[in-house]
Parts: sequence; structure tokens; C-alpha cells
Amino acid sequence: MLISCVAYQDGKRLAEIEPQDIHRYLAMPGCFVWVALLERDPAVLELMQAEFDLHPLAVEDARHGHQRPKIEEYGESLFAVMHLLEPDNGGIRNGEVGVFAGPNYILTIRSGAEHGFGEVRARCERQPEFLRNGPGYVLYALMDAVVDRYFPLLDGLETELDVIEERIFAGMTPRENVESMYSLKQRLVMLRHAVAPLLDGVNNLYGARVPAVCAGMQEYFRDVSDHLQQLNQAIESTRDTIATAIAVNLSMIGLQENATVKRLAAYGALVAVPTMIAGVYGMNFEHMPELEWRYGYALATGLMAAIDGYLFYRLRKAKWL
Amino acid sequence: MLISCVAYQDGKRLAEIEPQDIHRYLAMPGCFVWVALLERDPAVLELMQAEFDLHPLAVEDARHGHQRPKIEEYGESLFAVMHLLEPDNGGIRNGEVGVFAGPNYILTIRSGAEHGFGEVRARCERQPEFLRNGPGYVLYALMDAVVDRYFPLLDGLETELDVIEERIFAGMTPRENVESMYSLKQRLVMLRHAVAPLLDGVNNLYGARVPAVCAGMQEYFRDVSDHLQQLNQAIESTRDTIATAIAVNLSMIGLQENATVKRLAAYGALVAVPTMIAGVYGMNFEHMPELEWRYGYALATGLMAAIDGYLFYRLRKAKWL
Amino acid sequence: MLISCVAYQDGKRLAEIEPQDIHRYLAMPGCFVWVALLERDPAVLELMQAEFDLHPLAVEDARHGHQRPKIEEYGESLFAVMHLLEPDNGGIRNGEVGVFAGPNYILTIRSGAEHGFGEVRARCERQPEFLRNGPGYVLYALMDAVVDRYFPLLDGLETELDVIEERIFAGMTPRENVESMYSLKQRLVMLRHAVAPLLDGVNNLYGARVPAVCAGMQEYFRDVSDHLQQLNQAIESTRDTIATAIAVNLSMIGLQENATVKRLAAYGALVAVPTMIAGVYGMNFEHMPELEWRYGYALATGLMAAIDGYLFYRLRKAKWL
Amino acid sequence: MLISCVAYQDGKRLAEIEPQDIHRYLAMPGCFVWVALLERDPAVLELMQAEFDLHPLAVEDARHGHQRPKIEEYGESLFAVMHLLEPDNGGIRNGEVGVFAGPNYILTIRSGAEHGFGEVRARCERQPEFLRNGPGYVLYALMDAVVDRYFPLLDGLETELDVIEERIFAGMTPRENVESMYSLKQRLVMLRHAVAPLLDGVNNLYGARVPAVCAGMQEYFRDVSDHLQQLNQAIESTRDTIATAIAVNLSMIGLQENATVKRLAAYGALVAVPTMIAGVYGMNFEHMPELEWRYGYALATGLMAAIDGYLFYRLRKAKWL
Amino acid sequence: MLISCVAYQDGKRLAEIEPQDIHRYLAMPGCFVWVALLERDPAVLELMQAEFDLHPLAVEDARHGHQRPKIEEYGESLFAVMHLLEPDNGGIRNGEVGVFAGPNYILTIRSGAEHGFGEVRARCERQPEFLRNGPGYVLYALMDAVVDRYFPLLDGLETELDVIEERIFAGMTPRENVESMYSLKQRLVMLRHAVAPLLDGVNNLYGARVPAVCAGMQEYFRDVSDHLQQLNQAIESTRDTIATAIAVNLSMIGLQENATVKRLAAYGALVAVPTMIAGVYGMNFEHMPELEWRYGYALATGLMAAIDGYLFYRLRKAKWL
Repeated sequence: MLISCVAYQDGKRLAEIEPQDIHRYLAMPGCFVWVALLERDPAVLELMQAEFDLHPLAVEDARHGHQRPKIEEYGESLFAVMHLLEPDNGGIRNGEVGVFAGPNYILTIRSGAEHGFGEVRARCERQPEFLRNGPGYVLYALMDAVVDRYFPLLDGLETELDVIEERIFAGMTPRENVESMYSLKQRLVMLRHAVAPLLDGVNNLYGARVPAVCAGMQEYFRDVSDHLQQLNQAIESTRDTIATAIAVNLSMIGLQENATVKRLAAYGALVAVPTMIAGVYGMNFEHMPELEWRYGYALATGLMAAIDGYLFYRLRKAKWL
Repeated sequence: MLISCVAYQDGKRLAEIEPQDIHRYLAMPGCFVWVALLERDPAVLELMQAEFDLHPLAVEDARHGHQRPKIEEYGESLFAVMHLLEPDNGGIRNGEVGVFAGPNYILTIRSGAEHGFGEVRARCERQPEFLRNGPGYVLYALMDAVVDRYFPLLDGLETELDVIEERIFAGMTPRENVESMYSLKQRLVMLRHAVAPLLDGVNNLYGARVPAVCAGMQEYFRDVSDHLQQLNQAIESTRDTIATAIAVNLSMIGLQENATVKRLAAYGALVAVPTMIAGVYGMNFEHMPELEWRYGYALATGLMAAIDGYLFYRLRKAKWL
Repeated sequence: MLISCVAYQDGKRLAEIEPQDIHRYLAMPGCFVWVALLERDPAVLELMQAEFDLHPLAVEDARHGHQRPKIEEYGESLFAVMHLLEPDNGGIRNGEVGVFAGPNYILTIRSGAEHGFGEVRARCERQPEFLRNGPGYVLYALMDAVVDRYFPLLDGLETELDVIEERIFAGMTPRENVESMYSLKQRLVMLRHAVAPLLDGVNNLYGARVPAVCAGMQEYFRDVSDHLQQLNQAIESTRDTIATAIAVNLSMIGLQENATVKRLAAYGALVAVPTMIAGVYGMNFEHMPELEWRYGYALATGLMAAIDGYLFYRLRKAKWL
Repeated sequence: MLISCVAYQDGKRLAEIEPQDIHRYLAMPGCFVWVALLERDPAVLELMQAEFDLHPLAVEDARHGHQRPKIEEYGESLFAVMHLLEPDNGGIRNGEVGVFAGPNYILTIRSGAEHGFGEVRARCERQPEFLRNGPGYVLYALMDAVVDRYFPLLDGLETELDVIEERIFAGMTPRENVESMYSLKQRLVMLRHAVAPLLDGVNNLYGARVPAVCAGMQEYFRDVSDHLQQLNQAIESTRDTIATAIAVNLSMIGLQENATVKRLAAYGALVAVPTMIAGVYGMNFEHMPELEWRYGYALATGLMAAIDGYLFYRLRKAKWL
Repeated sequence: MLISCVAYQDGKRLAEIEPQDIHRYLAMPGCFVWVALLERDPAVLELMQAEFDLHPLAVEDARHGHQRPKIEEYGESLFAVMHLLEPDNGGIRNGEVGVFAGPNYILTIRSGAEHGFGEVRARCERQPEFLRNGPGYVLYALMDAVVDRYFPLLDGLETELDVIEERIFAGMTPRENVESMYSLKQRLVMLRHAVAPLLDGVNNLYGARVPAVCAGMQEYFRDVSDHLQQLNQAIESTRDTIATAIAVNLSMIGLQENATVKRLAAYGALVAVPTMIAGVYGMNFEHMPELEWRYGYALATGLMAAIDGYLFYRLRKAKWL
């Protein structure tokens, strides 16, 4: 589905154009065309391939989708794939955007994600002094937008982890903690799969030899790379912290079992000792002087109570109870 | 066993030829021969070595089989080994295919796998504009087919893991879960052994200096490499997830033990307390006023029931029962 | 907030100047200006950007803060970010300082940290023979100061770890140990995030090709790098030690549970055996000769005591008690 | 101890010669000398050092033994050390062979291993067309033989691991399993120490710049490297599998403990409930109607049996018994 | 504190000289001065800095001590730091030696270690043919001595580990085992900190571009590097083994707990069953025929003994006892 198809000249918006006229604008000096598609539509893709002369392998990747993030050179043009991650019902929805960037065109194909790039286009159009740089700048602006959207997701995961940590140390809901950490880790892996390969790709856009499309924009792409590295480092730390938290939770489970066994033992003792005394005075010996005492019964039950009281005091002090 | 032996010229099928005539076709301009063998047969291999002038070390590797995936240059020709993985009775059967690719020939030796490459040949013959590129393109087409067959296998493993995860968190069948995860990991290792070394090899087919056979096909081999990287990343994630799942399962086992101990303690208490009371009234003291009461017995059993009822309520509330 | 703005010539302090006059001093030969700001103030930053002609991306990073440590070249100037870590209520407060270093200026923006760099300026002014090297030397002096402040923090963490280790092996407070180790690890991660990326950055300041600002100062920056490597190595060791300590603590918890179960069993035995004997003599058989013995009761209780005494002796010897 | 000392010319055996005459043969064109020593004998080594003009540091290494595998260049000659591993009483005996390879000599010093290289020499002598390549080919043949002997060792370890795995999942002999896995890992480490450093060394024998001795033999040494990589990969997998198996065994131990506790609880219940009922009817209340019933005793024991039967049925169903 | 200060010419000892005369000897052709200091003394260091014209940053490092091992070039001279490890009361004492090596001088500053380098000097003076190589050779001789002293330390740690392993598998002293392994690991880390960074440093002394001081000595420094690699590999293996041993010990603790629970259950059964039988015959039913039997009591106790005997037999067979 075509969202928009606009021609720009010298950083300024020329006109919304028809897809069929693209090749005419591509021929105009200082002019480039920016097309945005939603969801992969074979027919539209075929038209675009013809208009922009896209490489068949890149088009095939764009058609199939579910690519890992990457930035590939095909002659003078670039094909970039980025993951679009959106929170979705406690999970993460994994969409993607494919970007074809050539000397005088930029084509984006978004799929599986709701949040579009209209605001990126609007900001670009408000800054013709930057947009004058052409498709390379648009590629940067799109990347910057995609990467910036990863940060709140990561913040959310870190906040979740903080909550789980508190529950772990409070000894609360160990089973739920394990489940939450597992789910957290799965989502972190999704984020890592979006960030790490993209970082590898972006690093080729600001070194010694950069693709022609990105020439003169090195400092911008280094900035994107810097943000990706920041994300990457935070993801690695969070992974590491989750691993430690799982180990810690296991220790906590061990400690709780220990405590349970102790309480079991303690209560057992409080019941077993009176039972034993009662057993003694239940024996049928003919000569058991206590049995005939006036207050024998009272003394026996008193003895039971006294021993239990003492045991209770000791066990409480030893923190078994 | 010879499956087929066909000569091609300018991307078009010339004829099915006899192995003994191969060298005659090799001498024709723009012509190449594509031979497919099934299972390693020393006699046929010797013939092929003579016809194609293959390097003895490569032939020895092909004869022995059980190689790790690799792509090796021998002068002007390449020798590639790839693993063919096929689901087999809950496990994976590990076959392999050796490919010799020279300037004007391609020779494949498949063994230990049922799924052949007839469909690859058919597709190549339908696209003479690509097949015109010669043995390099056939090598690509074979690789692409082999790699594409890894994806459903990996999907299967991921689905299995999802099932195990659910069982873990439902606290079901912990022993079977461990066994399943172990078996899953073993199969994942087989997949990794097929993918990782091949990735190393393919990376040499699209860089600055590529073997002559693959010249002009860099973008195709980069595409294969891209698929292999995607597999590799998914394999690493799955490995990591299995490791975490094993740790989580251990926590779950600890939690279940905890729960078992608690239930044991709870039921123990429900029995021990009445036993103690019974013991008290079983004592033989002469002066125990309750014993003479009309409703002493009823009171005693009532006391037992009341205490047990209260304990049951408390233990249930504390989730020990 | 402006802390100070001073012009230097040939290593000597010229004068405290007004920010608006900076560009006039920049034009003087052998002169450089050193400005120190506290907390990020958009208005002042804008003024500085204009006076020093700073790169907009670097200024944006400085304005936002919460950057990872880095050293970036923008044309002839450098932009460095370093973390300022200060102990804070058992945790670590994570401030940062951004440093712009150009051919004839140095601008520092400190935020989120109390400890400033007044002493660095004072020491620099006392050593005009070094300060003559210009902004490169000031950059070194600032880095050296920042890095030197990491050492006592790390020492503190190592001391904490020593205390926890002792408690682990004394079998004390296992729950608190786990919590302390977790908290320790979190702070160690903060330190690592301050050190590791900075090390990457500094390594580019003393190799074959160094930025013009740092020319001739290679041995100084190598010294900083050396200190960072020392920190890095110590951090890795401490991380590793914490991981081992968590595993060891888990073993200790297992051992304590073992000991608890043994004591429970031992005390149980001391109570259960007399109960059994009492049960036997509580049977109502008509012909039980012991019941009629004169000292039957004494013998029975004596038997109980003797068996318990023997059990106690054996259990103590086996360290179950 | 000298095993043999033979001169070769143009790939053919000239004669068994005396060590003192070596230098005379070295002077003959197209001639090389192959000496095999057993166990390190200082006197013989000194003679060899003089005859072949060996580098003192290499000779010192050869004299001391217990080197890690390596391949070192000393001017025009190579000094290689390889580990010789032989199964020995359930363990692995770690011998070693040092090889000096110069332009016209090859000297091997075997120690601590029983299996010699007589068969390698015999095979070389049967193939003069290869032996014509000189000491470089002999070095390859020796390496190939050493590396080929690692494979059955590794197979043995993998088979052992399979046996242990089966025992783990059958829940058998957990203590022995742990011990076996530990011992397996120790032997695997010995194998890894033989393989990994040798792989590093061999990789320098077939790249862009190879030592003169190995010139023209690149494909052969790449083949050795390929086998070493295959071993290396298998070793890493086995290590990984052992680590997982140890974790799995721990889970199994936890599960068994769980099962033990459940059985303990179940049997406890079967005894405790009748005890409680017996206690109730052992109370001495004057008014307990059941006591006077004709079939009270039968009813009471019947009640005990019925409850136990029901419990048994429930516990068996819940797999506690 | 000055230990010795000697001038050498052409590999032969000239004379013990006064520190103040050093610069005079430095001016003589073919002459170099070797100074050995003990413990860092600021005054002496200042004198040395003046005589040898040492770089202030290197001198500052030497003054402060507690450096990580390193080898740094300062113009024409080298500054090397190595750790001196000496067994000390079950732990390791961590001393260090700083070595300044210039074209015509060598200066060593030892601190925190008792074992000096007198024997190195003596051996060097006995071999003027080597000492003629100048300060580079002395640097090698010192390094070789330092590295050779690491081997017995490592052997000691490996022997300790063997003892712990035996205790683990014998099921002895699990608590002490954990403590010993932890302490072992700490000392191993000290050794690793001495070895790994030095290895990095030495690797720059025998490659393509070596410092002038070490020119022509490549094979010697490669030999040192080889020893360091051997140490490094052994350290890594031992680390790995300790990690496995800690995991194994945890399994053993679990197994012991399992055994404890079983014994507890077994002894419990032996006591509980007679108690139950006694309870039954302690019931007060009027009609209990057994009570009136002549040998009822003997039968009841016989029954108890028989059941216990049978249980004991079964439990012993099942290895619960």
C-alpha cells in the first residue's frame, strides 16, 4: 500500500507525484524522490523495482521480510533492514522496515508495525538545510528515529527487572519471579537482535570508505552508531543481571527450603515431646508412684507445657520459628 | 552411483552424456558439465578424478566423507562440503554433499540423505539467463537450496522449545523436560556444526579477492552468507535460551521440593496433634477429672477436630496445603 | 552555570575573562581559553557553541547528557565524555563531564557530581612548563584526575567483597550475603561502564595516528590508558570472584540444609525411641511380667535414658548434633 | 636412543648411515637425512646439534620436554613439538615428539609414548614420488599420523559420554556419573591441549608466507589444519555437552531428592494415621461407648486398614509411592 | 637501597662503581652499567633519573609501585614491570620488579619480594659471549628468571587441586573443599595477573618491529613468550577445572543430602512401625482376644522385631541405610 510518494529538489518539497512518474523526476538535476510503502505488496514492489531499477536479491529480501537487520551495498545504492519493536500486550511486536537508498531516491517499506515515519518526513521538510543532503540524510533521519524508539523499550525492561529484584529479595513469589525473568530475557533477546546486527552495519557507514549515498554524513552515522552502542552495552548488562538474578533466586529458594525444614522441625519438636511424656505416663507398670499423686496429672501437663515453653523460646531465638 | 551427467552450453542444456565423454565436452567453448553422484563409490570417483583432473586430497576427503563443512580452493577449482540435515524419527540424520566446482564443470556427491537436488537442476534449466554464469551459479544454487532446508529444521526445534517452556512453567513433567532439552541441545549442535563452518567458508566467496569460479557472483554468495548468519544468530539464541531454561527448571524443581516438604509438614501436623492429645488422655494418672466426665470423650475428640480444623484453615491460607 | 572562564598564554594565566570576549582571545597567538561549566544550561551552551564553533551533534550530546564515555573527533577538535562516580549512601552517584578540546580552547561541562576540577586547574597553573602544551595537556590532566578517582571506589568494593567472603565461610547471614553480592555487582557494573568504553577511546589518543590536539602527548595518554587497563583487569577479576562467591554461597546453603536435616533427624530420634518404649509398656496384655516388677518403671525409664544417652553420644560423634 | 638414521636421495632410500657421517650426506645434492631418536638422551642430542647445527634454544626445549605443541622457525629450519596421546589404563598417557626439519634433514625425538613412526617411514619409502619433496613432506606425514591418532581417542571419549548420558536419564548411579564426567573432562582437556596450540602453529604453514621447508606443500598442511579444526570443534562440543550434562545431573539429583521426600512422607502417613487412631482408643475416658462394643476392636483395626488402603491408593496415583 | 652498581664492557665486568660516576661510564664505547636497587627509595630514584635521563612518567610508576605487568617504550629505552610471586604462609606474596633498559644501561628496582637476582647476574657474568649483547640480553635473563619462578607456584596450585578433587569424590569435608577451592582460585588469579599482561608485552619484543634494545634477541624473547603461553594455558585449564569442581561439589552436597534424608526416613520407619503396633495393643477395647493370650506380649514384641528385621534388610538392600 502506498502511503506517500513525494519529489524534493534542493531540500524543498516539490510535489506529491504519481508512482508512474517517478522516473521522470529521477532525471531532474538536484531532485530526489521519497516513497513510503506500508506492508509488502508484490505488485507495488514490482513497479518500484522497475522505476528505481532495484537489485532483484534486495527486492526478494524486501518481499519475504523477516530479515535480520543489515545494511547492504548494491552498486551505487544501499538496502537497509531495521526491526521496528513495539510494546504489545506485555510482549513485543516485531515489525520491520526495509529502506532502499540510491543517489536520487529513498524507498521505505514498513510492515508489522503501527508507528509510521510521518513525523520523520515532517521534521525533514521543516529543515531544508539538512534535507538538501539528499537520500543519505533521509536514511540517517529514519535510522535515528528507529533507534530512538528502542530506548523507551529498554527502559521498560529495566524497570521490570527492578520490580522483580525487589520481589526476589523480599522472598516473594519465587515462581512468578522465575517466569518473569524468563519472559524478560526473551524480550531482551528480541531487542538485541534488532540492535547488534544493525550496529555492525552502521559501522561501515562512517569509516574510511563509505558508500557514495552516505558521503559527507559520517558524523551523523557515527552518532547513530554511538546510540546503538549505548543500547548494546545496556542490553548486555541487563542480560548479565538477569543471569545473576536467576542464580540469586535459586539461592533464595534454597534458603526458603532451609527455613521450611527448620519450622517443620521446630513444630514437630513442640508436639513430639509432650507425646513422649504422655506415653511414659501411659505405661501400665504397677508401681509408678507419680500416678497416685494428687496432682500428678497437673504436674505432668505442667511439665509438658514448661518444656514446650522453653523449646519455643529457644527455637524462636535460633530463628527456627 | 551416477544420478545424471549433463552438458550445458550458454546456459542451455545440451545433452545427457556418458561419463567417459566428459573430457570432450570440457574442451568445447562456453560449455560446462554438471554431474550428480549418489553415495560414495570409489570406482566412479576415480573416473571423475581422471575426467576432471581433481586434486587427490579433495578426492580423498570426498571418499571418506564425515567432513566438517568447508570451502577449499585447489588451484582454479573449489571443493565445498555441506551437511544435509533431515528430520529422522525425532532425531536428525546427518548426510553430506561434496561439490567440486571448476571453470567448466560441477560435480556433486550426495550421501546419507534422501532429499536430492533434482529440483535445483530443474530450476536452473528454467532460467538460462542465470545458468549462463556457469558452475559458479550452480554452486550458488546448490548452496542456497541446502541452506534453505535448514530453516524448517530450526523452526521445528524452536517450536519444541516453546512446548517445553510451557511444561516447565506449568510445573509438569520436570524429568521429561530435562531430557527433552538435552536432546534439543544435541540436535541444535548438529545444526550449528552445519552452519558455522560453512559461514566461514562462504565469507571468502564475496569479499575483495574471490576464487575465479565465483567471480561476478558476489552479491549472490553474500545473500547465502546473510541467510547463514540469520541461522547462526537464531541458533545462538536458542542455545542461550536452553541454558536459561535448564537453570529455570532447576529452580522449579527446588520450588516443588519446597512445596512437597511443606505439604508433608502440614499433613504431619494434622496427624501429630490429635495423637498428642490422645496420648495425654491415655495417661494412667488416678486423678484425671476429665476422664470421669460424661462427655469427656466427646470433648476430647471434639478438641482434636477443632484444632485440626483450625490448623487446616491456617495451612491452606499459607498455601502449605 | 559558569564556574570560571580563564585565558592562558604560553602556559601562564592571563586573566579571568567574560564569556562574550572568548573569540577575541582565541584570535591571539599562543593563547587558549579554559571554560568550566556546572550542570547543563541550554542558554550558556548556545553561547559557547557560537564562541567556539562547536559541532551541533556534540553539543546535542552535551545538552542531553547520560552518554556513555567516549572520545570523538569533530574535525580539529575532540569531544570527550567521562563518567564521574561518587559514593552516595551505600550506592554510587553517576555524574558525567563533557570536555570539548580544540586547538585553542577547552570547555568542561560537569553535571550530577559534587567533586569539581578546581584542584586540577590549580595544579596546571602551578606547572606552566606543562600547561604550555595547551588544551591537549589540560585534557590529559582532567582525564588523569577522573581516572584516579575511580581507584578508591574500586578499593571500597573489593573491601566489601572481603567482608562478604568472610561471612560466607563463617556460614553467617546467607540471605544478606546474597543481597550484598548482588548490590556489589550492580555497582561494579557502573564502574565498568565508566572504564571500559573510555579505555577504547583513550587507545586512539596514543597510537600511530593521533588527533592534532593530542600531538606530542602520546606517553601521557598511554599512562592514562595503562591506569584504565589496571582498573579494567581488577573489575573483571572482581566480577569473576563475585560469580564464584555466589556459587559458593549456594553450596553453603546446601550444606546448611544438610546440617539442618541431620539435626532434625537426630533430635527426632532422641524423642521417638523413648516414645516407642513407652508405647510397648502401655500395651494392655494381661501377661507382661515386667509390669509387675518392683522396679519395672525405673528400669523402663532407665532404658530410655540409656538408649538416648548412647544415641546422643553417637550422633554427636557423627556431627549430626 | 637412536632408532634409525637413514639418508634419502631424490625420494629414494640411500642407506642406513652412522650418525657421525651425517654431515657428509648433508653436503650431497638432492640428499636429506632422516633421524629418529627415542627418549631424550643428552649425549645423542649434543651430537645431533653439532651435525645439524641446531639452534641452542630449540635443543634446550627438546632436552627438557613437557612443551606445549608449537611450530617455531629458527632461520631456515623449523622446530615442531606435538603431543602423543595414548590410552592408558582408563586415562591418557601424554608423550611428545619433537621434530627438527631443515632444508636437508629431519630429526624426530619421541618420548613417553610407545607407538612409534616406523609405519610412517615405511609408507614414505613406498611413495618416492612424494618423498622427493624432502623434509617438508616428511614433516607433513608425521603430523598427519599424529593427528590421525587423535580421532579414535576422541571417539572413545564421545562413546563414554553416551554411556554416562544414558545412566543419567535412567536415574542410575548419580555419584559415579559425576565422577565419570569429571574424569572425562580432564582427558578432554589433555586432548584440547594437544590440538589447539598445534592448530595455531599449522595455520602458519599454508598461508601467504610459509617457511622455506614447507614451500609447495600448502595444500597438504591445510589438510592437516582441516583435521585439527574438525577435532577442535568436536572437542568444544563435547566440553559443552559435559557442562550441560553436569547441570542436568544436578537437576536429576534434585528430582530424586524430591521423590525420596515424597516416599518418606507417604510411608510416614501410612504409619502415622493408624497410630493416631490407636491413640484415640487408648484414651482412658470412662465413657467411651465403642470400647464396649463386641466388634469395636475389629472395627477400629478395620478403620485403620481402610484408611491406609485409601491413602495407599491415592499416594500411588499421585506417584508419591 | 642500592644492592650493586657495576659497569661492563664487551660482556666482561669492568668494576663496581659509584652511582655518581655512572654517566662517565655511559660515555665509554661498548660499555653498559647494570644497577640493582632494593625497595623504592625516592632519593636514589631521583639520582638514577638524572644519571640515566629516565622518563618522568616511568619513574613515577616505579616510585608508586603496584603496577600491572607491562613493557613500555620511552624513546630508545624500555620500562618493564614484572610481578614477583613468592609462596607465603599458604598464600602468595606479590612483589614486583621494575626494569629500565636503555642502550647502555639496565636498572632494576625490586620491592616486596625476598628472592633477588644475584644468581642471574652471576650466570650472566659467567657467559660473556652472551652478555656482550648488552642490556637486551640482561633484560631477557631477568625475564627468564622471573617467569621460571612462576612454574613451581603453578605446580603447587595444581597439586592442591588434586588433593581437593580426591576429597570431593571421597565425599569428605565438603565445606573445607569449597573454602580451599575458593582460596585456590584467588591465588590463581594473582598468577594470571602476573602472566597474562606480561605475555601481551613480550609479544611486542619479537615480532616484525622490535625496540632497538632488543634487536637481534627475537628468538630469546619468543622463548620467554612461549613459557608464558604455557603458563597461561595451564592457568586457564586450572580455572576451568576449579569451576567444574565447584559444580561437582554442589552435586555431591545434593547427593549427601539425599542420602541423609533416606537414612532419616529409614531409621524413622524402624521406630514408627513398632510404635504403631504398640499403640494398637494399647487400645482399651474390652474385647481384644490377643490381650488375654498367654504369649500375646511375646508375640507382639516378636512381631515388632520381625517387621523391623525385614525392614532393615530391605532398606539396607536399597542402600537407604
